Amino acid sequence: MSGARRLPTGKVPAEVLRRFVFPYCGVPCDRVLQGPGVGEDAAVIEMGDSVLIAKANPITGAEGRIGWLAVHINANDVASCGASPRWFLAIVLLPEGADESLLENIMIDIHDACCEVGASLIGGHTEITPNLDRPIIAGFMMGEVSKEKYVTTGGAKVGDLIILTKYAGIEGTGILATDLAGILKGKVSNAFLKKASEMLRQISVVPEALKAVEEGGVHSLHTPTEGGLLNGVWEMTEAADIGAVIYEEEVPMADETMHVCQALDIDPLKLMGSGALLIVAEQDRTDHLIKALNEIGVKASVIGRTTVKKEGRILVKRDGSKVIIEAVHQDEVYRILDQYC
Amino acid sequence: MSGARRLPTGKVPAEVLRRFVFPYCGVPCDRVLQGPGVGEDAAVIEMGDSVLIAKANPITGAEGRIGWLAVHINANDVASCGASPRWFLAIVLLPEGADESLLENIMIDIHDACCEVGASLIGGHTEITPNLDRPIIAGFMMGEVSKEKYVTTGGAKVGDLIILTKYAGIEGTGILATDLAGILKGKVSNAFLKKASEMLRQISVVPEALKAVEEGGVHSLHTPTEGGLLNGVWEMTEAADIGAVIYEEEVPMADETMHVCQALDIDPLKLMGSGALLIVAEQDRTDHLIKALNEIGVKASVIGRTTVKKEGRILVKRDGSKVIIEAVHQDEVYRILDQYC
Repeated sequence: MSGARRLPTGKVPAEVLRRFVFPYCGVPCDRVLQGPGVGEDAAVIEMGDSVLIAKANPITGAEGRIGWLAVHINANDVASCGASPRWFLAIVLLPEGADESLLENIMIDIHDACCEVGASLIGGHTEITPNLDRPIIAGFMMGEVSKEKYVTTGGAKVGDLIILTKYAGIEGTGILATDLAGILKGKVSNAFLKKASEMLRQISVVPEALKAVEEGGVHSLHTPTEGGLLNGVWEMTEAADIGAVIYEEEVPMADETMHVCQALDIDPLKLMGSGALLIVAEQDRTDHLIKALNEIGVKASVIGRTTVKKEGRILVKRDGSKVIIEAVHQDEVYRILDQYC
Repeated sequence: MSGARRLPTGKVPAEVLRRFVFPYCGVPCDRVLQGPGVGEDAAVIEMGDSVLIAKANPITGAEGRIGWLAVHINANDVASCGASPRWFLAIVLLPEGADESLLENIMIDIHDACCEVGASLIGGHTEITPNLDRPIIAGFMMGEVSKEKYVTTGGAKVGDLIILTKYAGIEGTGILATDLAGILKGKVSNAFLKKASEMLRQISVVPEALKAVEEGGVHSLHTPTEGGLLNGVWEMTEAADIGAVIYEEEVPMADETMHVCQALDIDPLKLMGSGALLIVAEQDRTDHLIKALNEIGVKASVIGRTTVKKEGRILVKRDGSKVIIEAVHQDEVYRILDQYC
């Protein structure tokens, strides 16, 4: 074990994936159009004239409606390839002492979310697992789209505009407002706290992802998750091997997120970001795209543009100063929960 | 929570699945040819002239080569539908304090097993998860076969013969010989204990499943897992809505399994059974099938036959007495580990 480094809590960093995960991929298969890669939301497999999109994501730390979250997190990644989520499998691991009602509530939540995204639950595995202190769900979503229509995170091109739907930090705001409600109570008004705790309801990006692909001109879709918007931008530019400029003042932020982040002294741009979709699109299609998204009730804002790689990945702060956007090794949610729990 | 019953450790019982899991399946989809069902090894989705087979299984309790096991357990279920395992996704959850070498060893094991079954690792998710005391892997395997060739567990017909490949209790023997080595040392010779601990190497049933389907005349394939051979037979007959007679004296058992089971006073027929495949086939194809399996180096034995449901599911013991085969609610591995650990 000498020389082997301990890993930080949360998603494993990209450089660790590159060294210890991606080299071990079994038998090469030329029907795999997109395999494992930094920032890639899902795998793409050739199936005649269409492609199958497949993604696996767990829910390991959330409280509340974990079955519902497991479906939406996976559906988001499948939709971020331009595909409708269709078929879901769930591995449900329950702690010892769990009863039938816990299982039924999780299954009702899975059912509800599957209905919301248009997917069928087609299989899985349910067990009582020793030495767990809460349920864990491993979700696996498959979707389908014609071969001409799928997009990957790495498809972004130099000179595109970068759009963000809804707000930065939706997921993290919802988690913190729930898990740290006691600490936030004195610092944030009850009304804001309640609204913040309900933000997870906005987590699905399936409608906007499918609408964007339908409208055309989209080169890349990506869901910022752990590490928030900045990590999402880093992953997208890394996957596409390009640079980017993001303007902080253009990044839409919900009032609830600002209040929660000020109260806890955390950076909303590094806060779990599911609920917002990064859309990288041809410059002259952007106005049309934003209008189309608004028409289905989804707010969308241009937050920056892509550049050649040598210009770097830059965040222009509100005061005009520039900072380099790097991989975010620990999401603000983990940092702050470590501090308070 | 009043009236809600606590669930036993291990796989959730069939009657619980029927009440609390199967009713919640999201949006119905007519391309799903096989969805969730008791004893069904995997889901089957129509894809033009072929079908996609998908399965999700976790490894939550094993020591040793868990990455390798995760691939094989899922590959077995896909092959039990008659399909070659092709595409694998892995969710790897590591405990806090885990280092890079643990991750790399798991990935090497996943790679090795993928190469053994002919699959590609195409995606997944790796994270450090708080409050775990060991790694957990959730595996997802997909495979493909032509629409005419796939089989389901429920396809067994009355009047078929029931074949078992290799031996009963392979997986459980391997686990107990490893996890309870200290206790077994005085009771079983070192040579047997070593051989027993190596039995997990025989866990793949992919070669025999694909060979059996290729030869034809196969109505059902099923891998007995938790609850051992008897639970596997119960699941198969339940899925097909038929009866069966199994002859204890015809069930092949490795000497290592017999020694370990005698030493711990456990029933080898209720011992985790991965490594053996139940093949239910037309009576007049059975001799040919067994010969074909022997030719690829796989031992295969007729252990009983299927009957109409009203004749029940019967085990004829060595002394001629008959007992009813029922669902096994707790595998012998869990019972005995509870006792000793």
